[in-house]
Amino acid sequence: MNETILTNYAALIARMGVNVQPGQDVVIEAELDQPDFVTRVAEACYGAGARTVRVQWSHQPLERLHVLHRTPEALAEVRPWEEARLADWAETLPCRIYLLSEDPDGLRDVDGAKLAAALQHKRRVAKPYRDRMENRYQWCIAAVPGAAWAKKLFPELDAAAAQERLWQAILSASRALEDPVAAWQAHNADLQARCAHLNGLGIRALHYTAGNGTDLTVGMMAEGRFHGGADRTLSGVVFNPNIPSEEVYISPRRGQAEGVVHSSMPLAYQGLLIDGFTLRFHQGRVTEVRAEVNQPLLEKLVAMDEGAAYLGECALVPYDSPIRQAGILFYNTLFDENAACHLALGAGFCDTVEGFEHRTLEECRALGVNDSILHEDFMIGTADLSIDAETFDGRTVPIFRQGRWAF
Amino acid sequence: MNETILTNYAALIARMGVNVQPGQDVVIEAELDQPDFVTRVAEACYGAGARTVRVQWSHQPLERLHVLHRTPEALAEVRPWEEARLADWAETLPCRIYLLSEDPDGLRDVDGAKLAAALQHKRRVAKPYRDRMENRYQWCIAAVPGAAWAKKLFPELDAAAAQERLWQAILSASRALEDPVAAWQAHNADLQARCAHLNGLGIRALHYTAGNGTDLTVGMMAEGRFHGGADRTLSGVVFNPNIPSEEVYISPRRGQAEGVVHSSMPLAYQGLLIDGFTLRFHQGRVTEVRAEVNQPLLEKLVAMDEGAAYLGECALVPYDSPIRQAGILFYNTLFDENAACHLALGAGFCDTVEGFEHRTLEECRALGVNDSILHEDFMIGTADLSIDAETFDGRTVPIFRQGRWAF
Repeated sequence: MNETILTNYAALIARMGVNVQPGQDVVIEAELDQPDFVTRVAEACYGAGARTVRVQWSHQPLERLHVLHRTPEALAEVRPWEEARLADWAETLPCRIYLLSEDPDGLRDVDGAKLAAALQHKRRVAKPYRDRMENRYQWCIAAVPGAAWAKKLFPELDAAAAQERLWQAILSASRALEDPVAAWQAHNADLQARCAHLNGLGIRALHYTAGNGTDLTVGMMAEGRFHGGADRTLSGVVFNPNIPSEEVYISPRRGQAEGVVHSSMPLAYQGLLIDGFTLRFHQGRVTEVRAEVNQPLLEKLVAMDEGAAYLGECALVPYDSPIRQAGILFYNTLFDENAACHLALGAGFCDTVEGFEHRTLEECRALGVNDSILHEDFMIGTADLSIDAETFDGRTVPIFRQGRWAF
Repeated sequence: MNETILTNYAALIARMGVNVQPGQDVVIEAELDQPDFVTRVAEACYGAGARTVRVQWSHQPLERLHVLHRTPEALAEVRPWEEARLADWAETLPCRIYLLSEDPDGLRDVDGAKLAAALQHKRRVAKPYRDRMENRYQWCIAAVPGAAWAKKLFPELDAAAAQERLWQAILSASRALEDPVAAWQAHNADLQARCAHLNGLGIRALHYTAGNGTDLTVGMMAEGRFHGGADRTLSGVVFNPNIPSEEVYISPRRGQAEGVVHSSMPLAYQGLLIDGFTLRFHQGRVTEVRAEVNQPLLEKLVAMDEGAAYLGECALVPYDSPIRQAGILFYNTLFDENAACHLALGAGFCDTVEGFEHRTLEECRALGVNDSILHEDFMIGTADLSIDAETFDGRTVPIFRQGRWAF
């Protein structure tokens, strides 16, 4: 890939992505795949005034070995110094950059339940620190083309050509090929206009229907506010948490979801695919789970804790989004969630509650923001999806028709 | 490189190198260069019964950025969680594997004094933990062929061929090409026989002379004992700290070194080369430093702390060692120190004191083992080096003639 484009993409992540503030620390998480690009991102962060940039490297084949060989206890273990590191971050609030490149099949042959139990324990330990940091630091998830990931998407190409092709797809989907900063400013303005329209309607519930049998009504909070694109920390620093991002999203009201919803794309969870699944909701809670592929893992997800069976997010993405138009199933949520409307099981976001800056976490949860150690997106958008808004003043307003914005 | 040979080399490191005990933790430090081989070593450790294997990856181009962009304070910083990690290791005593592959020139363009000051501070923080762990855990340093390192050694070859050639050189020097376990058992037996002979002489001092003007006498402790090859933890676990290792070594008596010594090979310190240097000693202490290349860095090393100007090691390596015969300057101490007799500035080893298992660290130091945060080898072996032992009973016994064993 062209050097200038890569430098611009690294700068996009450092400047528009996390928007590093002078003197701030940065933590980057990355696979070993793309050391040159990771170094470029680190350089862009230093260029923006970072005090320190640290990279936490991981290597999926090693993760696989850990799952195969460690006892469940050793796999789940969080050493005291690892907890001290979480405490340090909760205190010093470094920017966090996550550069994804994992092989979607990299953990296919491991014991999924063992891995899920270990992750569940680790998340439980991390949760108080994450709660303390919420909305107080900038973060950004972006992608780089891992070799095995590229080969899965483009098996007909040789290794180098497949990676180059995936670079192209990532950069195109991320609006990073031409003048990325201008492209992101225009895109964020568009998403914000959509949000303003939706927030003006006074939506009490969204009603999803599609030809696959989906018929689901999800209740909203009166204080709920749609968000999209750029986000803002409590201290006022603007950042873009997802590159790419095509969605407009909101946290629904916990306890109000009725009906059935069908998945429209596979869900890749920690290297394992769950596919062809249906969730039935009653009083906000998942009451029935069916999956053609990996039903036990889906059951485990939903049972991870009390909140894992409730919805934490409703996201609206038109069926003609640039990512859908690329015609690629990325097997990676960052991209695939931006190709279709989706819901998330688990934790909601406080920042889609009006005036969240002045409310405590407990107040947000009392209003209906779901709490869980899980937050897992799953795609429900189809070419024929309709969404209607039922408003607090009794109107029914079309939001989506034939999978696209109806306004 | 042939798969079987790599698997055998990984097993050599895990089994003879650190000799992982069932249920023990392992920490591997490695550059990003050779993820497949590092994963192979991790697998060998799990195969030997490791409870957990963790890899701490580093990437020299990132280290370079840190030195360029961080303030001296930020570069030297040890976060509280990093100190907690040192404390955890001092408590749980994991095996430590260091897989070297750095580019000898990777840090050539950075501010060496800034880097040295930062490392000095970090070592000072780590020192109490290292002292607590001394002789209580197994460790092993071995090498893998980094791309830039290979290219420096074999500039006439293309990248892949240079790495393959360096694999060959590393594995050959490490006695890892054919039946490595049997080769190491025989080699360790030979080194131990040399040590037994030397320890039977009752050596009061070693007197080094060579045609380049070297004329140095270094005093020994009556309790000093030569070591070579395999080592043993206080709890009795045998391990091989260096792969390769051709040396027979001892900690001299602090305060007894008189005369002048000339370097015979460049010293690579944190990516910087110091070359063509002379050290003059009086009453054990360096009193004069001259270097054709990088004299200020050498001065800094010697001044790092009180003990950095005293000797911590005298190592005997015949000039016809297999590593010398390979005819390659590796620009890496692990190899180059095994191509020539060398001395070390800085900390000595307590385990070359008789009965060290029953002595405290303080007692060992009182006997004459030098203490410092530094331990830096430098090569003095030449084709014409002579070494004579002066014994406590007044004899003069030839140890080296024409750069080789005289017995």
